[in-house]
Amino acid sequence: MYCERMQCAALENRILCAEEAAAFIKPGMIIGMSGFSTGAPKAIPLELAKPGKFHDLTVIQGAGRGMLTELAQSDAVSRYIAFQWCREMRDMINAGKIAFSDVHLGQLSDKLRAGVFGKVDCAVIACSGIREDGGIIPSLSLGINDALLECAEKVLLEINLAVPTAITGIHDVGGSALCPLGGILERRGEAVLRCDPEKIAGIVITQAEEPEIDIRDTDAVCRGIAKQVRALLDGELAAKRLPAEFTLQAGVGGVANAVLREFSEGGHKNLKMFTEVLADGALGLIAAGVISEASTTALDLSLKGLAAFFANAAFYKEHIVLRPLGTSNSASQITAMGLVAINTALEADIYGNINSTHVLGVDMLNGIGGSNDFCRSAKLSVFITPATAKNGDISCIVPMVPHVDSSEHDTDIIATEYGYADLRGKSPKERARAIIENCAHPDYRAPLLDYFSSASALCGPCQTPHDLSKALSWHSRFLKTGTMKQA
Amino acid sequence: MYCERMQCAALENRILCAEEAAAFIKPGMIIGMSGFSTGAPKAIPLELAKPGKFHDLTVIQGAGRGMLTELAQSDAVSRYIAFQWCREMRDMINAGKIAFSDVHLGQLSDKLRAGVFGKVDCAVIACSGIREDGGIIPSLSLGINDALLECAEKVLLEINLAVPTAITGIHDVGGSALCPLGGILERRGEAVLRCDPEKIAGIVITQAEEPEIDIRDTDAVCRGIAKQVRALLDGELAAKRLPAEFTLQAGVGGVANAVLREFSEGGHKNLKMFTEVLADGALGLIAAGVISEASTTALDLSLKGLAAFFANAAFYKEHIVLRPLGTSNSASQITAMGLVAINTALEADIYGNINSTHVLGVDMLNGIGGSNDFCRSAKLSVFITPATAKNGDISCIVPMVPHVDSSEHDTDIIATEYGYADLRGKSPKERARAIIENCAHPDYRAPLLDYFSSASALCGPCQTPHDLSKALSWHSRFLKTGTMKQA
Repeated sequence: MYCERMQCAALENRILCAEEAAAFIKPGMIIGMSGFSTGAPKAIPLELAKPGKFHDLTVIQGAGRGMLTELAQSDAVSRYIAFQWCREMRDMINAGKIAFSDVHLGQLSDKLRAGVFGKVDCAVIACSGIREDGGIIPSLSLGINDALLECAEKVLLEINLAVPTAITGIHDVGGSALCPLGGILERRGEAVLRCDPEKIAGIVITQAEEPEIDIRDTDAVCRGIAKQVRALLDGELAAKRLPAEFTLQAGVGGVANAVLREFSEGGHKNLKMFTEVLADGALGLIAAGVISEASTTALDLSLKGLAAFFANAAFYKEHIVLRPLGTSNSASQITAMGLVAINTALEADIYGNINSTHVLGVDMLNGIGGSNDFCRSAKLSVFITPATAKNGDISCIVPMVPHVDSSEHDTDIIATEYGYADLRGKSPKERARAIIENCAHPDYRAPLLDYFSSASALCGPCQTPHDLSKALSWHSRFLKTGTMKQA
Repeated sequence: MYCERMQCAALENRILCAEEAAAFIKPGMIIGMSGFSTGAPKAIPLELAKPGKFHDLTVIQGAGRGMLTELAQSDAVSRYIAFQWCREMRDMINAGKIAFSDVHLGQLSDKLRAGVFGKVDCAVIACSGIREDGGIIPSLSLGINDALLECAEKVLLEINLAVPTAITGIHDVGGSALCPLGGILERRGEAVLRCDPEKIAGIVITQAEEPEIDIRDTDAVCRGIAKQVRALLDGELAAKRLPAEFTLQAGVGGVANAVLREFSEGGHKNLKMFTEVLADGALGLIAAGVISEASTTALDLSLKGLAAFFANAAFYKEHIVLRPLGTSNSASQITAMGLVAINTALEADIYGNINSTHVLGVDMLNGIGGSNDFCRSAKLSVFITPATAKNGDISCIVPMVPHVDSSEHDTDIIATEYGYADLRGKSPKERARAIIENCAHPDYRAPLLDYFSSASALCGPCQTPHDLSKALSWHSRFLKTGTMKQA
């Protein structure tokens, strides 16, 4: 029974089945959707994905995983904004079937409010319930839901009975995103989302589990990178450039999880986390007391992680606050937190420019997400990457990256399993030597030094030596021969 | 007589001649220096520049113009941070004689405080006087002076009698850089800088004029760009995406000045300015009532502009506040202001990536300065550039920029004298068409479309078509043949 989830009498008459609700959506509309990894609507997207019913939809979502598979595989969507973790969506983007605009997540809500993408015709927002006073109890993520409810012409809500009611109270919505928080757990707003009831066109009751998240086991390379990050942070702590109970942001994926695991072995206590998504690794550290306070916009947990969270929800809710994306990724908050940002690069070049998004410069991976929000305003900006990919045929340290998502100016540290390069205060030539010597795979050090030397000889004295006829040749060689290694 | 400028009895015994003061500086030291275009010390740098006395100095300065010529030409300096507008300094950097680390200016003070560049041995700070209570009355700029006085081991002050006392009271120092200002002219701190008197090792009395600033006359191309920016803003105002009395940031140089002049013809009143440097163009708009409130870290004025300012100082001080660089370029403040940022690009590529710093990818121009501070957090980020340079032999719209200072994610609009491209919400392929059709010089449109088509054919469907073997070939061709035009 859904009665305890839907306590707002004034909205009782809006309850519809998914098909009826989806009828408010017309081809060509701009649809805002909840979902930041978790917390996506489940029933209405499946209606939109039914063959032949919809086309030319623009979908705006914080970070799509969940229902994106079905939607991507349908012909309903012709444009998607802003970040996706979904192989089928990625394939459609790279096939040129879905236009993809890649936006800094920290600015997405402001851009929505400014009408940059046009008027949002309909918002489809998952929630865990509606209070008597109309307050919408959010699901497992907040993302851009506040901005969508504010901007959309019409709103469709999905109450998901599969989300335990114990989620209630973890969220903090409202209050200025700009004025620095007094602390990680400070609450400024209320625990519910608000929406003009006149705009609510339909409420659908669903009971749908979150899709499983594929968590790769961390391997020796990940652990090697993690050890380098730990050595770096030990050095910063020893030099008193970081307080003992410092604040951390970590991206997602195997390497980030390994870095977090390394923290549990480092004897740290009472670390703080101010981040975009809280993954299984971080949840474990909270349980262990390594992290005592965490702020995030989403619980990006596996089914096992979700079970662990809800088995001990009262405990975790004392240590975790979920905030809107406009706050979790706000440059103001990130600056004020003085945090260590640890994000994964696809590749880095010898001067410290970072490619986070474009495989070989042309194919989209997931999008820039919040990586530049955090590294751009962090106190210490760390990019991590394995030294090689594709069994050693790709060097992740290259002469020049073919796409820049975070520039040399945004990068303090690059770490691989071989070491880390501290780029702070260094000139480009000093950076090149530090990156090649400390981060590159031994097999690629000599070729990288060759490039740097021959570029230096070609340019003569200059700020940043490059041989423009060869700067991207490593990528070209891989495309032609299957390896960046010279014959 | 300097008595009225030096009213602090407790510091009387620190008055020295420049040579005596410079004796506190030793070879190899890290020196922090005031100066953000204007407001640099004059006498002590000339001592440092004397042949054979100093070597291996690191100079950290917000934005050097002033005395940099002599210092650059000496052998005293081996490393310079963070931005320079000085031909001699640029030449030494590109000759490899001075190591140059290019830092986002908005983070420079925080990085100093975090000790990223090492301990500052000595700060050399120009001022216009010292009050009885020890408060240091700043000169024509604030820049990083607050951070330097805080961090430096020793402090040398230069009281410059040539700066009219009417400057007193225009500055606002202190208070949080992060919590959004209530308005452009809100004052939070006091009008003086503070420094532990124990650290003040010497006070030098000078009387030195500011060096003249070379203001290029705006030409037809500049006016053409300005007209495009005006058309853009008229459109934003009509679409109600900007309030009538919007807030503006503008970079420096001929194009920016032309854009400002265009505003005076647009019928605007009571615009606001939140910017890094206030140049002659903006001063004229304040006099005309087009701009009613301005916040900046420096008066970047020609001698004529300075004379105009001081002839009417009481009026201008009602409309202008000078703030530390950490506030003027703070991401929090820039976000809160919801401003239109207009910055000059050296070149842009067909996907919207911006090169602001590296001529042909290798030689340093001035540095990134605050351009990315503003465009990264602006409500509307506009990059302006002439469509061509070098009499048409360089296209400023290229297939790929060889250095990225602001990425596609940071760029909303690109404008040249031919038109503007609105990149918001567009996919890379849509951006390419918009930029080529609207911004490129007609002579380069077909070659750019050729590149885009052949790259698209080569890659097949993908997110961002590039032919990596040809992406930088336009720059290589210019280096070889003196023109980007194909034979």
